[in-house]
Amino acid sequence: MIILGLDPGLGCTGWGVIRAEGNRLSHVANGHVRTDAKSALPARLTSLYESLLAILDAHHPQAAAVEEVFVNDNPQSTLKLGQARGVILLAAARNGLGVGEYAPRLVKKAVVGTGGADKVQVHAMVGRLLPGVKIAGADAADALAVAITHAHHLASARALGSHAA
Amino acid sequence: MIILGLDPGLGCTGWGVIRAEGNRLSHVANGHVRTDAKSALPARLTSLYESLLAILDAHHPQAAAVEEVFVNDNPQSTLKLGQARGVILLAAARNGLGVGEYAPRLVKKAVVGTGGADKVQVHAMVGRLLPGVKIAGADAADALAVAITHAHHLASARALGSHAA
Repeated sequence: MIILGLDPGLGCTGWGVIRAEGNRLSHVANGHVRTDAKSALPARLTSLYESLLAILDAHHPQAAAVEEVFVNDNPQSTLKLGQARGVILLAAARNGLGVGEYAPRLVKKAVVGTGGADKVQVHAMVGRLLPGVKIAGADAADALAVAITHAHHLASARALGSHAA
Repeated sequence: MIILGLDPGLGCTGWGVIRAEGNRLSHVANGHVRTDAKSALPARLTSLYESLLAILDAHHPQAAAVEEVFVNDNPQSTLKLGQARGVILLAAARNGLGVGEYAPRLVKKAVVGTGGADKVQVHAMVGRLLPGVKIAGADAADALAVAITHAHHLASARALGSHAA
């Protein structure tokens, strides 16, 4: 199964695509989608949406996952993030993908083993879990981490399903 | 010129279409797009987006306008509104429409004459400015008000343009 992980942001959205076969994970691609802060908001959202469509078209993921949002104290930042996130969820849903949502602590726990892990630890573990990966940057590392979390979650769900059967 | 006004919300988005010919305004259509609170967020955003595409397809507006967002004290509400607003701005921009943004006070001033007007006054003045209109509800009234504001703004811009020429 091909899984797309996303770390949404209006200025920079990290993305990462992995392949999950049973318990075996491998890296497919990762990167950032950036939008021009000097452009008007509707143009930035359009640019983000069309970049996501290109990623979906290039890699044909069968599932997508995003981090649940940490809503911070700055309402304008929350609004910007919400606008970008809405466009990202729309791109996935209109392409028929289910979208898993995971709390940041759960992503850290799935990847590093502890919910209190820092960004450096997450980055390093993503590199170990996906041999040979070259990570484009911090947001791409987070996107790969959420894709890995979704792969674990789907594998656990399958295991529970067969146990119950 | 056909103008689409929008009052964004995840649960209920008001919309209103008016025709502006010189200083003469007339009503074309208005209504609400509702999404099912029991559905998953990506499905709600898809439903909102596709309803907007149907409205654009039915009325072929040449311009769109939304209220600037009042970010409130509840970050979860701001995030929800942001997600809906992102999808709305995307629908307009991908259909080639410029999107005007107006502060709520400016909309009230344009429609009623004072930035401190209440919702009842706005609703009543929308009814007077668009003879024969049947307003679907409060959010549709706000959407028509922002469309009227955009029409005034475009007319003023034209007047200034011809004055300067």
